[in-house]
Amino acid sequence: MTTELLLQTNFYQYYSGKTGLTIADFEKLASYFDFREIDHNQLIMRAGEVCKHILFVEKGLLQLFSLDEKGGEHIMQFAPENWLLMDRSSMYFNEPSTYYIKALEPSTVVFIQPAFLEEAGKINYDFTCFTETALQRNIHFLQRRINSLLAMSAKERYLEFVAMYPQLLLRVPQWMIASYLGITPESLSRVRREIAKDSF
Amino acid sequence: MTTELLLQTNFYQYYSGKTGLTIADFEKLASYFDFREIDHNQLIMRAGEVCKHILFVEKGLLQLFSLDEKGGEHIMQFAPENWLLMDRSSMYFNEPSTYYIKALEPSTVVFIQPAFLEEAGKINYDFTCFTETALQRNIHFLQRRINSLLAMSAKERYLEFVAMYPQLLLRVPQWMIASYLGITPESLSRVRREIAKDSF
Repeated sequence: MTTELLLQTNFYQYYSGKTGLTIADFEKLASYFDFREIDHNQLIMRAGEVCKHILFVEKGLLQLFSLDEKGGEHIMQFAPENWLLMDRSSMYFNEPSTYYIKALEPSTVVFIQPAFLEEAGKINYDFTCFTETALQRNIHFLQRRINSLLAMSAKERYLEFVAMYPQLLLRVPQWMIASYLGITPESLSRVRREIAKDSF
Repeated sequence: MTTELLLQTNFYQYYSGKTGLTIADFEKLASYFDFREIDHNQLIMRAGEVCKHILFVEKGLLQLFSLDEKGGEHIMQFAPENWLLMDRSSMYFNEPSTYYIKALEPSTVVFIQPAFLEEAGKINYDFTCFTETALQRNIHFLQRRINSLLAMSAKERYLEFVAMYPQLLLRVPQWMIASYLGITPESLSRVRREIAKDSF
């Protein structure tokens, strides 16, 4: 990829904006990341595999999910543009993942090797801080998710989802949003009708 | 606390066993931790406060929970002997917690200042690795919890709980276990009856 093209990517803008990593740094680290085109419905990782890459969504939409014994799909996370996605614990402990990663739209995904983070951290101290903060934000996000599954009504969960992923409402089928929220599609329809009424 | 008493604590044995921190190191770091007696039902942290300490349970049992608008209690975590408890994201981001921490039994709790981790890491490199691994294990644990709330039956959740916290079944009232599992007390009773039948 030419310097000019790289400068225009979400990937470059995301990391340079948050950490001050320069375009020269990116070019030095080029062997640690790789832009790939992923088809709609293509699986990037299967349960049983070890997660080897941090995925940055340049364009499109990915999901991390598990399958139960009856084939039911349970959505852990959506990742639209500018989101990072991985199974951290599979990667860190080098253990088979229990999750799948799939593209919900034709997507461009940056496959980042974990060594990218280490090497970038050596070049730029802000990068190390950013990575550490990202880890803590991840914990915050997971805790909130547990709390919302335990303590929030279907309506509260849906409103939280809308605030977090406003751009996904038109891109993801309703049953998947219900799966993410841990509610039935019928509950989601009811909640959406209630909210529509409240708006008048 | 005398050296001899400190040597006998769970706190010393836990960290020295996992990281090789010596008793001399502990004595050097003594200003960063503090053993306190906590009464049954005493609150250690309230929602709205910033979490300032990492809590190590020397003896007894703590819980981390949230309250909803109707006063319903939602249990994020139990912490019996040798467990660490804190609201990591409140501590890291210096933001008010949404959780409460309370003793479910008369307890002895070590209040650890975050500086303990930093200073111990300077003394002993294994300690830094252990802390990093603990963070990743925490993420693993939170992910599993979300997956169990989304994807597992009441029976599967209960069996997972029994495997993780075998010693708690007789120490915690049933309604609290149901709250932790995100199921009704009635579902929990049904599951327990089913399991009792299966055992014959």
